[in-house]
Amino acid sequence: MSEADSSRGKCAHIPLNPVPRQQHVVHSETKLDSQYNIDVFGKYRGSSKVMVLPKTTEQVSQVLAHCNKRRISVVTQGGNSGTGGGAIAERDEVLLCMRDMNKVRDIDEVSGVVVAEAGCVLDDLDRHMQQLGYIVPVDLGSRNKCMIGGNVSTSAGGLRYLRYGSMHGTVLGLEVVLPDGRVLDLLFTLKKDASGYDLKQLFIGAEGTLGVVTAVAIALAPKPASSQLVVLGLTDFCKIQRAFVLARQSLGEIISAFEFWEKRCNELVVEYEHYESPLETAHEFCVLIETRGSYMQHDVEKMDAFLDKLREERLIDDSKVFRDADEMERVWVFRQQMATAHGKSGCMHVYDFSLPSKHQHDLLVAVKEHLTAEGIYGQADSPVKDVTIFGHIGDDNIHLQVIAKEFGGIVEEVMEPWVYEWVGSRQGSVAAEHGLGKHKGEFLKYSKSATTIKQQFDPNNIMNPDKHISRA
Amino acid sequence: MSEADSSRGKCAHIPLNPVPRQQHVVHSETKLDSQYNIDVFGKYRGSSKVMVLPKTTEQVSQVLAHCNKRRISVVTQGGNSGTGGGAIAERDEVLLCMRDMNKVRDIDEVSGVVVAEAGCVLDDLDRHMQQLGYIVPVDLGSRNKCMIGGNVSTSAGGLRYLRYGSMHGTVLGLEVVLPDGRVLDLLFTLKKDASGYDLKQLFIGAEGTLGVVTAVAIALAPKPASSQLVVLGLTDFCKIQRAFVLARQSLGEIISAFEFWEKRCNELVVEYEHYESPLETAHEFCVLIETRGSYMQHDVEKMDAFLDKLREERLIDDSKVFRDADEMERVWVFRQQMATAHGKSGCMHVYDFSLPSKHQHDLLVAVKEHLTAEGIYGQADSPVKDVTIFGHIGDDNIHLQVIAKEFGGIVEEVMEPWVYEWVGSRQGSVAAEHGLGKHKGEFLKYSKSATTIKQQFDPNNIMNPDKHISRA
Repeated sequence: MSEADSSRGKCAHIPLNPVPRQQHVVHSETKLDSQYNIDVFGKYRGSSKVMVLPKTTEQVSQVLAHCNKRRISVVTQGGNSGTGGGAIAERDEVLLCMRDMNKVRDIDEVSGVVVAEAGCVLDDLDRHMQQLGYIVPVDLGSRNKCMIGGNVSTSAGGLRYLRYGSMHGTVLGLEVVLPDGRVLDLLFTLKKDASGYDLKQLFIGAEGTLGVVTAVAIALAPKPASSQLVVLGLTDFCKIQRAFVLARQSLGEIISAFEFWEKRCNELVVEYEHYESPLETAHEFCVLIETRGSYMQHDVEKMDAFLDKLREERLIDDSKVFRDADEMERVWVFRQQMATAHGKSGCMHVYDFSLPSKHQHDLLVAVKEHLTAEGIYGQADSPVKDVTIFGHIGDDNIHLQVIAKEFGGIVEEVMEPWVYEWVGSRQGSVAAEHGLGKHKGEFLKYSKSATTIKQQFDPNNIMNPDKHISRA
Repeated sequence: MSEADSSRGKCAHIPLNPVPRQQHVVHSETKLDSQYNIDVFGKYRGSSKVMVLPKTTEQVSQVLAHCNKRRISVVTQGGNSGTGGGAIAERDEVLLCMRDMNKVRDIDEVSGVVVAEAGCVLDDLDRHMQQLGYIVPVDLGSRNKCMIGGNVSTSAGGLRYLRYGSMHGTVLGLEVVLPDGRVLDLLFTLKKDASGYDLKQLFIGAEGTLGVVTAVAIALAPKPASSQLVVLGLTDFCKIQRAFVLARQSLGEIISAFEFWEKRCNELVVEYEHYESPLETAHEFCVLIETRGSYMQHDVEKMDAFLDKLREERLIDDSKVFRDADEMERVWVFRQQMATAHGKSGCMHVYDFSLPSKHQHDLLVAVKEHLTAEGIYGQADSPVKDVTIFGHIGDDNIHLQVIAKEFGGIVEEVMEPWVYEWVGSRQGSVAAEHGLGKHKGEFLKYSKSATTIKQQFDPNNIMNPDKHISRA
């Protein structure tokens, strides 16, 4: 909540001792503006009445020390673009909003390493880095809203994991404030470091349950000199898998993304976001492949050879190559708006699975059959309107959407734990890149045994206390 | 120690209760064969009298449960190729040798993931994977000896970190036996996983102080279809840095290694390993650049363009390109034997630093000046014979060698903590990829603040108890 909001009289500054007066603390007699108390798709609703907006690490430290002493629970929020409810304060926890910690502290232009505060919006940070010849190695649909601290805290994978890998590899250092207010300086900026236990790794994906990530040192990737996209239209899911094998062979070192979505996803983006479909005609499946290289002529030759192979093996019904920057941007926006379009079309239940790609389409079929058998899908008056999948073939990561007419227990009741068992029995994971938040914890046993170290870092359980990750 | 050794009567099988009889347990009245009690360069000497060679995870579990109950300390050893003394049992700890756990448990040929037991020798594993079209994404000079469990436990960086990144990114899962014998199954094999704290990360680089890594799931990289090397001869260290910037521009996505060494390193390999120098004439500095791509003609064009730029800017005095597989192998062996050649030339003290490349040559100059000023270098009868540097420019990782005529306290006395202070004051780390072992712990404060979690995992302090990492 900004100062402008508070000047409308809805909120008042309530200085909490020992937080200095200049600190932003927003308090509402009922609860905070809904933008902070409802998740991006309206599924998780919180009731926090107090939000704190620190500007410095020291202020975060003071807030946590204060809360820890008084056993006041704290939920950290970045861009509030998460789909798992991890940044929503369900009870009356204090919301620690990182928005005002948005400075770039340091850039090493030779080694390509940036130290950025947690509240830097990913898109802002990436555009800034591009001016210096680099890109941030993580990218996701919510890039205009999500913040780098949240990306780290959810271990975001995103669109180009295939090329640039996980945050466990690209994050070189972190600054973390522990629940008792101590600042853990793990802000290492060199690439190789074997000088002690790699503690920072525990905070990558911990969803704010062990401490607050206040700054991130991340290894940037060089900005590619050449880039192109191709969108393919296909009839058969099996052909996508074969196309992926050929893409890795033909496009080798220049491939940077391999995404797919099914027909219904395409329709939803056209209908609810009013974007033009990348392909003129409708296809059962679309595949989006991006290459990033250093010399366009070579990349074009590789792409041509790849498309020839696809045609030889009769894998595709349609293809369109994009090389103009604006056109490529439009195709990416089309892909990135997929989740939002689903959200606008109804009440969305999102599942985010790691699942071997050979099982991904079977999942869609199985879910539709299951919901039909349970009597909640398939008729005009069924509670569930749509079931769709899209995702990242290169990383075995699939997003399953079940769109209901209204939120309520029925979808969860029918889907869970059935779907977790289905995924678990096929060597999948029930949480790939969206984090655990509120909705998956009790089913973790289906994909992974775990030991909690929550107790060690947060003995008073004040940090994001009701989320499932800390109970896994 | 093999059964063949024990049949010579030097060792006897002593079954430890409750370890099953068929388990290999080797015991010596004095101490074990020196190959297990001396590190690869003869600097660290141990006195373990008992070695256990488990064949299964269950046997590791039984051994640790037994030892934990009786407070018997355990040092885990893989290929014993480490340079930090981390795998040497200084007192009479039990040596847990992982050599016989060398099976490949599973390979997913579609997603490119292998599950290998800790005792797989890196070179064996890599050759096996190459037959399936993949490579192991970590590679280092000791590839014929080191084992994948040791690579994980030291968080090995190696020669191609520049291309394939760190083990924190490429290791997908681990199986770990905890000190009390519990088996922690974190053997996840999919790429994206956000289902709980990423506990496996703590064991990557923990040097066997928190538990024993028994199996590793690692994401393989596709085997490149084309590869080439170029060796450059240069006069001036500053020109290496400029060459690196140009290489990243011209060779972009195909660059896979950028190594350098100085003249004296070249001489030592020729003198002690009897390999032919890659370049006919001697140069102050040599640079080795490798490219790996999917289409040789494109790679050749990129290399030609790169070499033209180097010549235009008058950066190099000499260059030789290698494209024949056997020739390339010989060049790599030349580079990989560098540490061994140093070891043969005298009593080697190795330092392994992360240091911004602009400071790397200054380090060599400063060390020579310091040792000269202290009166132990520069004269025919000085205790120190040679001081050299070589390393990985792309990762800011440098190896500093101080070769003395004999081991003894003088080199450490003069070098430490002076050199750690020098590196720390230039934002370096005193341990890049060799691990901490015995020789760096007390100086950790110069590069990183740390908190120990040793107590939580190993309350009885039986796992590799005297090494510095657990006290950082």
